Amino acid sequence: MLSAEIIAVGSELLTPFRTDTNSLWLTEQLNSVGIEVKLKTIVGDDDARLEETIRDALKRSTCAVLTGGLGPTEDDITRKIAARALGRRLLLDERVLEGLRAKFAHWGRKMPEINSRQAMVIEGAQVLDNPNGSAPGMYLEADGRVVVLLPGPPREMKPMFESQALPKLAAKAGGVRVARRVLRVAGLGESAVDERIAPVYTQYKNPQTTILFNRSEIEIHLTAQAQSEAEAELLLDGLAGQLEERLGESVFAFRGETMEEVVGLRLAVGGFTVATAESCTGGLVAHRLTEVPGSSSYFMEGVVAYSNEAKTRLLGVPAELIEARGAVSGEVAEAMAEGVKARADTDFGLAVTGIAGPGGGSGEKPVGLVYVALSDDAHTEHRRLMLPGDRHLIRWRASQAALDLLRRRLI
Amino acid sequence: MLSAEIIAVGSELLTPFRTDTNSLWLTEQLNSVGIEVKLKTIVGDDDARLEETIRDALKRSTCAVLTGGLGPTEDDITRKIAARALGRRLLLDERVLEGLRAKFAHWGRKMPEINSRQAMVIEGAQVLDNPNGSAPGMYLEADGRVVVLLPGPPREMKPMFESQALPKLAAKAGGVRVARRVLRVAGLGESAVDERIAPVYTQYKNPQTTILFNRSEIEIHLTAQAQSEAEAELLLDGLAGQLEERLGESVFAFRGETMEEVVGLRLAVGGFTVATAESCTGGLVAHRLTEVPGSSSYFMEGVVAYSNEAKTRLLGVPAELIEARGAVSGEVAEAMAEGVKARADTDFGLAVTGIAGPGGGSGEKPVGLVYVALSDDAHTEHRRLMLPGDRHLIRWRASQAALDLLRRRLI
Repeated sequence: MLSAEIIAVGSELLTPFRTDTNSLWLTEQLNSVGIEVKLKTIVGDDDARLEETIRDALKRSTCAVLTGGLGPTEDDITRKIAARALGRRLLLDERVLEGLRAKFAHWGRKMPEINSRQAMVIEGAQVLDNPNGSAPGMYLEADGRVVVLLPGPPREMKPMFESQALPKLAAKAGGVRVARRVLRVAGLGESAVDERIAPVYTQYKNPQTTILFNRSEIEIHLTAQAQSEAEAELLLDGLAGQLEERLGESVFAFRGETMEEVVGLRLAVGGFTVATAESCTGGLVAHRLTEVPGSSSYFMEGVVAYSNEAKTRLLGVPAELIEARGAVSGEVAEAMAEGVKARADTDFGLAVTGIAGPGGGSGEKPVGLVYVALSDDAHTEHRRLMLPGDRHLIRWRASQAALDLLRRRLI
Repeated sequence: MLSAEIIAVGSELLTPFRTDTNSLWLTEQLNSVGIEVKLKTIVGDDDARLEETIRDALKRSTCAVLTGGLGPTEDDITRKIAARALGRRLLLDERVLEGLRAKFAHWGRKMPEINSRQAMVIEGAQVLDNPNGSAPGMYLEADGRVVVLLPGPPREMKPMFESQALPKLAAKAGGVRVARRVLRVAGLGESAVDERIAPVYTQYKNPQTTILFNRSEIEIHLTAQAQSEAEAELLLDGLAGQLEERLGESVFAFRGETMEEVVGLRLAVGGFTVATAESCTGGLVAHRLTEVPGSSSYFMEGVVAYSNEAKTRLLGVPAELIEARGAVSGEVAEAMAEGVKARADTDFGLAVTGIAGPGGGSGEKPVGLVYVALSDDAHTEHRRLMLPGDRHLIRWRASQAALDLLRRRLI
């Protein structure tokens, strides 16, 4: 496998507030054509350190991929220092300069003189066009090594890399193809998942399996290598199928989709509608459902009933029931689901009530106690959950459990 | 100022799924005692690359801070390679070994033989205790340079660094203290902010000012250095006061608080209550308000009225008004705010309606058109916004504008 090092350039990436995240996406892209990332460096606008970093990377690895530092100011040192590290000249490219002028004209502005710096190209480099910004990128092969210079902003970097640099790197990597799949699991713990699937996945070196714990979801990442994408996909199909057999309905996504996308798709395909009634999640279930474009075709309305009075007025939950069972109870959760369904006249009513903390817990009803309920024309059910974590995580996990309850009903 | 490089060790940090985040916290800690981070490296379990990385760091910088790779397995190479890079021996420390055995006994387990590796200490290093795990850390001074080895898990790394390494580094840095402040701004564009405050902040080298654009918020980061924390805070007070004079009410936070925390505090202090009526934000305003612990004292209820029918039934918005003006209009936004306030019987009603896209836009009412409205006992007002970005960002920015409208009324 070819090796690469990723170098992120910019002093702002050495503050406590920002760090390089481009490299995660770049790693995935490089891996997909069979190139392994062996080291990442984050360096400031610092001539000497950047030059040494580039030199070291090219001593050790086949490719050096740099992001950032291609802007028009004095602080944007990547062009200059990369040229120096390679022992090459930086030349004004008239065609690039013309392109920059045209770009600014199109934006209705005159090109500031300072931007002509962005037309300086390392001798022998191929220019990578930037449809989303002014900074062009560069691709250069020298002594069997590859150097790629990319702009820092993701919306400029990503399309440039994918369409112009990746095909060249794929060719250089000799046609190894790597395919990935992300299975997402809800309703099972990490060790339960591992117990069920370890006997299967440990038998395979290819695809390789990694289990990640991400908020309340468990992700199973499968990576397969083959001579073609189709072959790699076939390997993934085989293992994913076996894992699904072991995990059943707990796998909710096979291509990394979010829970709200999966639920939304099932609602849309079935022509169903839903309304939500929330207490402790405070609107998060509605918010997640409506994050999906086109959700207005199935999401009708949501009620956030924080006070008991609102639960009665907006959802028709009998005050006596709240009195008798408490606002955090299976009975009230079911009454909320039935109430919002009846009033919104939808196919499904989905409800959450619970104690997200940090205050409000008691011995009998501790922080983390959550009830989710679902009502349709035929019946109403609820589930009782004890969720770990802080307020933020409890709320997120409660929203996930509510959506998962709906998903399972839709299967 | 002393310089440091941070080195994160672990092959999992070179996958597309995980990256080093410890370094953000470490940077803040190092900065706070006047040590600047000049470079960060993320390296796998790779003997040669790690050794070169450590050697290079110590050539260039005063301190090398390493995280990860202190576990008990063969893959945990940090101890061994750091010793090699420093040209020192690795010696078994009987006291550390005893401590490890006692720790495992306390956990009710016999120490696996493999863990005795964690008792190997670099010649001349001080051992840093790890109350939250088995891996001890190390602190070593050699030839005027400092090497710190820390475990990777944040809950082990952070307390160890803060209590045992930081005081030594602070002493070495000669008692420089650095204080920071984060001002957050809403309702002004980045260039408008810079235009107003550049004449002020460019006059100061200390505090240093950085403007960051973060979602729909603008953050102004101030960093001051002095011989004492009190002195540094005084410098910050002086500049922050001048910036506030220039920016007025647009500064909503002086200590990095979130918009929902600021609004929540003002509501709680004033003894006011609020209810929300949302269309395009789909529950996000309610969700954000209820992220704050204790919000049940001022947030009463929220309605997510996606359909026109729901706007009429749940909020009392006249169907004829929606017909005449459209659901996305200032009049409907105001009617939503008034409706939810009247029905929830709160002091404030806050409403949002708009087009988050990607579909649903038209020439007259394009994607990004949003109206926010606020109603109290005295009057109702609305604001019209054209928000840039994708669906997710438009929704987030709309929620921010709604909360900001309420914040300004509460001043």
